[in-house]
Amino acid sequence: MRKLMLSTILALSFMLSFSLPALAGSPVKTLPGDITLAQAQTILTAALKKAEAIKVPMNIAIVDAGGNLKAFYRQEDAFIGSIDISIKKAVTARYFNMPTRALGAASQVGKSLYGIEVSNDGLILFAGGVPLVDANNVIIGAIGVSGGSVDEDESVAIAGAAVIK
Amino acid sequence: MRKLMLSTILALSFMLSFSLPALAGSPVKTLPGDITLAQAQTILTAALKKAEAIKVPMNIAIVDAGGNLKAFYRQEDAFIGSIDISIKKAVTARYFNMPTRALGAASQVGKSLYGIEVSNDGLILFAGGVPLVDANNVIIGAIGVSGGSVDEDESVAIAGAAVIK
Amino acid sequence: MRKLMLSTILALSFMLSFSLPALAGSPVKTLPGDITLAQAQTILTAALKKAEAIKVPMNIAIVDAGGNLKAFYRQEDAFIGSIDISIKKAVTARYFNMPTRALGAASQVGKSLYGIEVSNDGLILFAGGVPLVDANNVIIGAIGVSGGSVDEDESVAIAGAAVIK
Amino acid sequence: MRKLMLSTILALSFMLSFSLPALAGSPVKTLPGDITLAQAQTILTAALKKAEAIKVPMNIAIVDAGGNLKAFYRQEDAFIGSIDISIKKAVTARYFNMPTRALGAASQVGKSLYGIEVSNDGLILFAGGVPLVDANNVIIGAIGVSGGSVDEDESVAIAGAAVIK
Repeated sequence: MRKLMLSTILALSFMLSFSLPALAGSPVKTLPGDITLAQAQTILTAALKKAEAIKVPMNIAIVDAGGNLKAFYRQEDAFIGSIDISIKKAVTARYFNMPTRALGAASQVGKSLYGIEVSNDGLILFAGGVPLVDANNVIIGAIGVSGGSVDEDESVAIAGAAVIK
Repeated sequence: MRKLMLSTILALSFMLSFSLPALAGSPVKTLPGDITLAQAQTILTAALKKAEAIKVPMNIAIVDAGGNLKAFYRQEDAFIGSIDISIKKAVTARYFNMPTRALGAASQVGKSLYGIEVSNDGLILFAGGVPLVDANNVIIGAIGVSGGSVDEDESVAIAGAAVIK
Repeated sequence: MRKLMLSTILALSFMLSFSLPALAGSPVKTLPGDITLAQAQTILTAALKKAEAIKVPMNIAIVDAGGNLKAFYRQEDAFIGSIDISIKKAVTARYFNMPTRALGAASQVGKSLYGIEVSNDGLILFAGGVPLVDANNVIIGAIGVSGGSVDEDESVAIAGAAVIK
Repeated sequence: MRKLMLSTILALSFMLSFSLPALAGSPVKTLPGDITLAQAQTILTAALKKAEAIKVPMNIAIVDAGGNLKAFYRQEDAFIGSIDISIKKAVTARYFNMPTRALGAASQVGKSLYGIEVSNDGLILFAGGVPLVDANNVIIGAIGVSGGSVDEDESVAIAGAAVIK
């Protein structure tokens, strides 16, 4: 059979390369405590509810603890250009463990981090990205929202982040 | 009030720029018939069900008729590297209105489209991306799946695409 | 004082934005179990020892569980072009939870994953990247090595990976 | 033997291409006096010591005289987003042979180098990158530090740079 499942290749390659009894079982692939899809869906649902309440169509992105995309929704009529902004807001919030509003405040003209936005393939410096902190007080990712004013975006992000505390 | 909502700015700018009676109301922002978030969620749910049935953790991406990301899910333990692949599969399937398997067949060494993968910031040439065709026989987007063998990926994509026909 | 420490901004912004008792303490910023710098240094030392034993100057990169760079060494006379290759090998190995040799085998001309290398801003499909699996059988990152033949590179990567099991 | 070491290929290709007596031996691959890995490790150790003294987790990057990455460490809890910033600070400091603080001062709004940060795939304009000058008064590379306030970052960079003078 030509097309092996990647996970089978993994198991085989580990056995072939290392031949260690300790790897008889498949290794754990995700660090315990990282955000789950179920959590991300709960956050998206709460964020959507807020977006509908304020009647602003939104892009909503969620990244995990490593800053990698976990889930994403775009509502009807939400800006196409906000797909990338919402993802970058989530990435920015996790990469610096703070709301994008806070990073932006330190990066304005004349402030100490002026120009930081050219790093990391583009950071977003305005509000709408916030870290996701779970009930154990661990940062497990971040949410980024884009579609309305930055205050509206942030209100949706906060509504989403609130449900996993 | 300093921070205007972007959609208000949009409405104002349309009025200022065009001053057309036809634009007295806000313009329609999305093509009628384009994929809705509700449809995308239905597709994701069907795709997840299939992924769980075959026990392979997947990345599942959905793009709209313009080839722009509409919704995305990553299951626990699904490859991080498959985030990008699933999105590129969906984009590839919509950009060429065919399953990625078909484009791949035409792009192998010695075939007419050899090398096409370097265009469009990277196309994916193996199975797992399929166009989304609705009940009116209109292509409204595409789904891309990555995480298992290409046959498994495609089976999940087809399961997702089937629910909107 | 104009220049606040970023971590102070973080603490302040959390307090201002959320004002929650649960955030009176600073949140945990790193998922428990992720690779530590001390582990990375131990791995680098073991890898260097192997590189010196086979007399091939190497670039050695280590990424964490999220695929983000944790540590890096370039020996004298190691190829400049291998800086990027070693990092991409580590990223590739973590993104797909398998040695780059295994992914490469599935991506050759005529194989199911042909063309995968254009995804993720460039994957490396030859040997020299291996996942880092700790004593608890958890994948906590990956090591990528580049500088000699792919077999030599992989032997150095395996020597590095072996010390944390 | 199918897999030749790249350095053997290099030696062979030099002999084949040039057939020069002067190249009977392998050419010198690194400029005499360029930073060594041993020097980089000494610098990293001194920088880590300072980071621990001020209790701020840091990303620390070292580039050689060619501006190419030589060594890198990320401490636990240091910002993921500062990986790229620390490397860019080191590159910026070497590309212009001055501390990033000095380049930043000349690049503020209204100053002569305004906008320079978009060149070179992104320069960093705030403090934390400093050239590495050895005991012979030769610039052999640069160090970039990111994780705290720009003053803290720079203090760690200076502590690292001091040990090779």
